Amino acid sequence: MPSPFYEKAMSQAKLPYTAVARTSQEMSNQHVRFAHEQHHSEAADIEESELFDMPARPTDTMEAADNDALYYAVSLGARRRTRKGRVFWVTVLSLVIVSVVGMIWLYFDGISWMQRSKKRNVILMISDGFGPASETMARNYVQQINDLPIGYKSPLDEILVGSSRTRSMNSLVTDSAAGATAFSCLIKTYNGAIAVADDKLPCGTVLEAAKLQRGMYTGLVATSRITHATPASFSAHVTHRDMEDLIAEYQIGNYSLGPVVDLMFGGGRCHFMPNTHANVSCRMDARDLWSEAQAAGFHTLSTRKQFDALDSHGAAKSLPILGAFAPSHMEYEIDRDATTQPSLAEMSAKALGILDAATKKKNAGFFLMIEGSRIDMAAHTNDPAAHLRDIIAYWDAISVVRKFVDEHPDTVLISVSDHETGGFSTAKQLTPEYPEYLWNPRALEHVRHSIEYISYKLLAQPTNDLEGRYKYVRDTVFADWMGIKDAKYAEVIAVAQETESIKLRQLLSDAISNRAQIGWATHGHSAVDVNLYAYGKDAHLLRGNKENTDIGKFIADQLGLDLGKISGKIKTDRVVQGTRAIKETWLGRRDLDALEHSPSTH
Amino acid sequence: MPSPFYEKAMSQAKLPYTAVARTSQEMSNQHVRFAHEQHHSEAADIEESELFDMPARPTDTMEAADNDALYYAVSLGARRRTRKGRVFWVTVLSLVIVSVVGMIWLYFDGISWMQRSKKRNVILMISDGFGPASETMARNYVQQINDLPIGYKSPLDEILVGSSRTRSMNSLVTDSAAGATAFSCLIKTYNGAIAVADDKLPCGTVLEAAKLQRGMYTGLVATSRITHATPASFSAHVTHRDMEDLIAEYQIGNYSLGPVVDLMFGGGRCHFMPNTHANVSCRMDARDLWSEAQAAGFHTLSTRKQFDALDSHGAAKSLPILGAFAPSHMEYEIDRDATTQPSLAEMSAKALGILDAATKKKNAGFFLMIEGSRIDMAAHTNDPAAHLRDIIAYWDAISVVRKFVDEHPDTVLISVSDHETGGFSTAKQLTPEYPEYLWNPRALEHVRHSIEYISYKLLAQPTNDLEGRYKYVRDTVFADWMGIKDAKYAEVIAVAQETESIKLRQLLSDAISNRAQIGWATHGHSAVDVNLYAYGKDAHLLRGNKENTDIGKFIADQLGLDLGKISGKIKTDRVVQGTRAIKETWLGRRDLDALEHSPSTH
Repeated sequence: MPSPFYEKAMSQAKLPYTAVARTSQEMSNQHVRFAHEQHHSEAADIEESELFDMPARPTDTMEAADNDALYYAVSLGARRRTRKGRVFWVTVLSLVIVSVVGMIWLYFDGISWMQRSKKRNVILMISDGFGPASETMARNYVQQINDLPIGYKSPLDEILVGSSRTRSMNSLVTDSAAGATAFSCLIKTYNGAIAVADDKLPCGTVLEAAKLQRGMYTGLVATSRITHATPASFSAHVTHRDMEDLIAEYQIGNYSLGPVVDLMFGGGRCHFMPNTHANVSCRMDARDLWSEAQAAGFHTLSTRKQFDALDSHGAAKSLPILGAFAPSHMEYEIDRDATTQPSLAEMSAKALGILDAATKKKNAGFFLMIEGSRIDMAAHTNDPAAHLRDIIAYWDAISVVRKFVDEHPDTVLISVSDHETGGFSTAKQLTPEYPEYLWNPRALEHVRHSIEYISYKLLAQPTNDLEGRYKYVRDTVFADWMGIKDAKYAEVIAVAQETESIKLRQLLSDAISNRAQIGWATHGHSAVDVNLYAYGKDAHLLRGNKENTDIGKFIADQLGLDLGKISGKIKTDRVVQGTRAIKETWLGRRDLDALEHSPSTH
Repeated sequence: MPSPFYEKAMSQAKLPYTAVARTSQEMSNQHVRFAHEQHHSEAADIEESELFDMPARPTDTMEAADNDALYYAVSLGARRRTRKGRVFWVTVLSLVIVSVVGMIWLYFDGISWMQRSKKRNVILMISDGFGPASETMARNYVQQINDLPIGYKSPLDEILVGSSRTRSMNSLVTDSAAGATAFSCLIKTYNGAIAVADDKLPCGTVLEAAKLQRGMYTGLVATSRITHATPASFSAHVTHRDMEDLIAEYQIGNYSLGPVVDLMFGGGRCHFMPNTHANVSCRMDARDLWSEAQAAGFHTLSTRKQFDALDSHGAAKSLPILGAFAPSHMEYEIDRDATTQPSLAEMSAKALGILDAATKKKNAGFFLMIEGSRIDMAAHTNDPAAHLRDIIAYWDAISVVRKFVDEHPDTVLISVSDHETGGFSTAKQLTPEYPEYLWNPRALEHVRHSIEYISYKLLAQPTNDLEGRYKYVRDTVFADWMGIKDAKYAEVIAVAQETESIKLRQLLSDAISNRAQIGWATHGHSAVDVNLYAYGKDAHLLRGNKENTDIGKFIADQLGLDLGKISGKIKTDRVVQGTRAIKETWLGRRDLDALEHSPSTH
């Protein structure tokens, strides 16, 4: 009867030529023992030199494999007959060689083999500008408007694990660039920095390392311009977030690491378009990155129709894909025309399908960053209804991703904000009298457009007809778009007369926020810790109060990444021109005076 | 040589008369065995009837005790000589009786004996009015002022487990009464309710059940009046939080359950004092509860000196203790004179020492509620410095309790807020221009008094000398007390001229908050989820996003409590007068028009 060991040898012998060639040495060691047990009386006296000269022999059929295994077994059975001294020294030498090679490999690769061999998907979801009060507000709203039980939990409530501390290197209040760089590079840096450290030198990101060190597929999904701070911090290295022209160049692979992002869905086509196309370009120069991307192999999309036509399996073969469905940011969820732009949940589902198909038969998984970008922008405008609807759209995306995690246990979902925006609170005192304890979700129920949308429409109205304007404001703006039927004359006339954008938005914000009894302390960010959610593989490791950099560390640990090495590669590339030249190159790419400073860009 | 058993019998015999009388029956059983071992050959044939008629005999001296022990031993040695048949039937009958009694006990008590027999201490700490931004603010402050590493964690940061949802039955924004009743009774009720349900009928609290169902020791520590909403919700049942005269009556045991609180430390002596003592009383009537408490066995304290003199072991024997160290609330930490009032940490340490000593050799542990009461009140006044210092004082108490938990593994610490106060945010936009991303902890560093303290002092100043007032405000109020050296003329003169308390406080709040760039949305509460912290035994069960009632359920589960039964006992007591009578009794105890509505009482 053949032993189990024999059967294992048989199955190894059935491997194709190269595999057998690789494993013949190990087989020989196994067969020595096997032969010793089965054939020790028959074994001939074979010199070691013969043993080492013996070639690995290809096998094609099962029978041949059988014969081969026996051949090795019998012919190697004699190894033990060599003189003891020689065996001893050969063994010692082999051990030394194996140890040295192993140590060199470990040193240069630095990643545990065990970890490498495990397939992992990491999905990092970022709810930009979403503070603790935003979650309470959205849950209160959904529970009350739909008459759900008090204990109703949102898709996020169910997976809360702790909180994330958001401060940057140079301020207690971060911006989205430094906030995202903490996740992507595992470092605290200065506000405005896109994957560069405090010294303005580039830092390797988890996305780059996942691609280059683990051969993973990578994706970025956002509702902002894809060149905006958060997605940029995973895929570009610039000293200021507003250098979006340069960020677009990085994103299609125009830098030392080449193309590292396999899939991009979002807005921001304008930074890829030459300034010769005035309507759809926001570039400073005439470079046509859209065509450059296509030439470099990117499959480009710009319409909902093209998006819908994407089949996961087909698209997986067409990677890399660049889908930019709006010249600038995609629409707020509250304004979104579903026939022209996909939702965040739809983009997330499509991205997951494609990346899953692309990695189906591979040893490596994917890294996907999904951002609910405009939760933040609505809070900058102090627009509670747009803020709310973008949060609910983000919840929908969370549900899609959670379902994927349920079906793919080698996957972890992390959901976190980079910071809070607006100093938002579910309380607003309206009079000097001691306030009642309440806030009013119903005031947000019938709001049909964002304040940004309404203010654009209003500013486009003729200014010479105040009576017509008054009626338009009262009937269309207040009644139809904001759901306010009890507007006071003073409120309506103030809005009708206002022609300055910032002041107009403030009046509209007050009209909704006061009725909801929702408070705002700023049009900027605040320092409060944000909620940390995680689900799936090793999610428990994120429990408790964490630094934002700990989120990045968790991802790097999960994937066995060495970001220092990636940083080194980017640096070496640039350092040949000298550090000053690098800084000048980066800073000089765009006139800093032309930076956008409207609240909605931060 | 006497056996160890003999020695135990000797020591029992040394107990005073009554103790021996109580234990003689158990002794007899022990001595049967002892006698059998030592004197079986000498034992006489004694009839069982003689055995059961034998009286317990008092002993006075050591020698007599010695003789007594021998007497029992010898005379009882013959029990085993009864016939086999009788033994069998007695055994069967005994087993049946034991089983039936056991099943009845299990049915009516419904609590696993296993759980009951485990000693557990539960320490519930409540940081009233402490929202997520408050923790970030205090940590940022301590880290920056002391130049600690960015990763510095507060004693709370280290034990974060999740968040608590705070809404009450009748509003998305709770008050402290409904908030504390969620913890104490495990139910959502209306704002203002003190351990009564939505139907205004009383609900049993975890404190009452811990005392009556498990024989645990119980304590309440607070920096507010001990009759204030949070401690009241564990120890009284009234339909409105402002009925503090009646709450005081409950707290010293004047209700159907009798005295249930073994230890009280806090402020609020005034509701125990008759209104004949105008200076120290806030009662509506002339009842002297302080004397009533003493007569009922309470050890009363009102000074720091008495507090310091308390020795844990001595005090454990003097329970119950009522310590009220201020007529109304204790001082804000920022104003506290350490020679007259103990800190929250000191009161916590003392309470733990006493309750630990009291339960040292007992099977049951203790339940202790500790409240950082005035974190909330400072936020009501929108006073960031007083808010901050009371938070740090609360951290100190947390450190004390964590150390106790480390030394007592059968203990769990829960720290949670009932709600957020102030719509507080670590961001404030000061101009219409787009705001910088920062807030400034240094502005709080040199503030030396609470706004409440400063406003009292200012309002007591003569109003006829505006120049003197101006100098006083500039040099004492701004420079010395608020650490503001760069006050503008307009700020100083506005404060100097203001004589209305609420407006004055607002001016002082703005002076500090604007410099710190800290925002407030209200003088009331907000709806945001609050942080949930836990440490020690089974703390992991509190992970995630919880309802405030889940905190109460956790405590009840830990201690194996059945609150429904306690509710039943309180109801039965009152229901004899009819439901209407109950309501009238409760509501009628105090003129509702006289309720305090200043922010600092909520």
